[in-house]
Amino acid sequence: MKRILIINPNSSEEMTRDIQDFATLYAENEAEVVTAKIEDAPKFIETYQDEAQAAPGMTRLIQKNQKHYDGFLVACHSDPNLDLMKEISHKPVVGIGESSMHSACLLGDRFTVISATTGSIPNKEALARKYNLGKQLTSVRPLDSVTGAVDKLDLCERVSRDAIDEDGAEVIVLGCADLVGTSFELQGRIGLPVVDGIASGLSTLLGFINQALFISKVRRYGGHV
Amino acid sequence: MKRILIINPNSSEEMTRDIQDFATLYAENEAEVVTAKIEDAPKFIETYQDEAQAAPGMTRLIQKNQKHYDGFLVACHSDPNLDLMKEISHKPVVGIGESSMHSACLLGDRFTVISATTGSIPNKEALARKYNLGKQLTSVRPLDSVTGAVDKLDLCERVSRDAIDEDGAEVIVLGCADLVGTSFELQGRIGLPVVDGIASGLSTLLGFINQALFISKVRRYGGHV
Repeated sequence: MKRILIINPNSSEEMTRDIQDFATLYAENEAEVVTAKIEDAPKFIETYQDEAQAAPGMTRLIQKNQKHYDGFLVACHSDPNLDLMKEISHKPVVGIGESSMHSACLLGDRFTVISATTGSIPNKEALARKYNLGKQLTSVRPLDSVTGAVDKLDLCERVSRDAIDEDGAEVIVLGCADLVGTSFELQGRIGLPVVDGIASGLSTLLGFINQALFISKVRRYGGHV
Repeated sequence: MKRILIINPNSSEEMTRDIQDFATLYAENEAEVVTAKIEDAPKFIETYQDEAQAAPGMTRLIQKNQKHYDGFLVACHSDPNLDLMKEISHKPVVGIGESSMHSACLLGDRFTVISATTGSIPNKEALARKYNLGKQLTSVRPLDSVTGAVDKLDLCERVSRDAIDEDGAEVIVLGCADLVGTSFELQGRIGLPVVDGIASGLSTLLGFINQALFISKVRRYGGHV
């Protein structure tokens, strides 16, 4: 059985548990999955300072666990320190941001990312541009822009409908690991494909492991080889 | 057990058998896989005329098998008629070109596509641009440009080494379904990740099926809904 370490780059115990529960169910017969949080990181990653604060803990986690796992998943949708992780890891590393956005491009022409906060919009846009997927990203819609609804699913439904009506969204990407487990019901409500980062990332990572693929160690992620 | 129909858009019996053999091994415990060829298509798809000739047969294949399969894989690396297939199918459809090129972007910064013929270079370049992956595609290297070597693996090794030395390739994408099954050994020889279209496409499609994802039916692939 394959072994996957999911790195939750923040220190939230609740989010770590939610990711673990969903990932265990999702990967069930294919992989043993362990989710670890970063103790000295903030409870939520939004800024580049948050990201920098998570870097040492994430680095230690990869270095300590190189031999014990077949692959690593970075489970925060802003893909914090993903390039660094790819540089230091000898096993495949996937970010849920990159995986979910690339996948969305195969399911429709334009996608909208639902983000947790208004503050994370520019970073999401910059991330899509970094991956050269800026043209397919039609909008980022933050949940904290909606007033009234309190239920997570209702919130997602409201911003998704706005994305469809106003931005021409064809695919919805759940842009926060905190939304894990809501994609199936949201799909049923809005009729568009909804990409969950954790499911997408796990699926991509398992595929890479099955194909014996690894992060290229020439040029960009070569480090001091 | 999931059921996947692999559509080989050409009429080559040999290539169909090679794809079937590899796909059966690769998907083994996860899916039942059937490969079908297109009788009235050319033996090899290179030009837009070849593509057009394959369209009616591919359309019939999807229409006849909508209910019998959980997903469809278009197994030619130029992704012939993929938009059309996405428009008419109610089940997820993946092309091995789009899947392998998007995957390559997660494994390194720049990829080279190995194509079968010099004639297919411009179409490959156009395909990468269509997917907005033109910047990551550093070169297309055709096998028929190499003289001397006769073994398929030796040919691939030669063009891969040129791609590394001259084009800065970090990842190699096998740009023809005919190269199926050579990725593992080629990886061992050159030390770079080598993405096989069939393995990548199957893996992506299985992931979509597991995530209950489908092709968006609003806007681009809406057709006459």
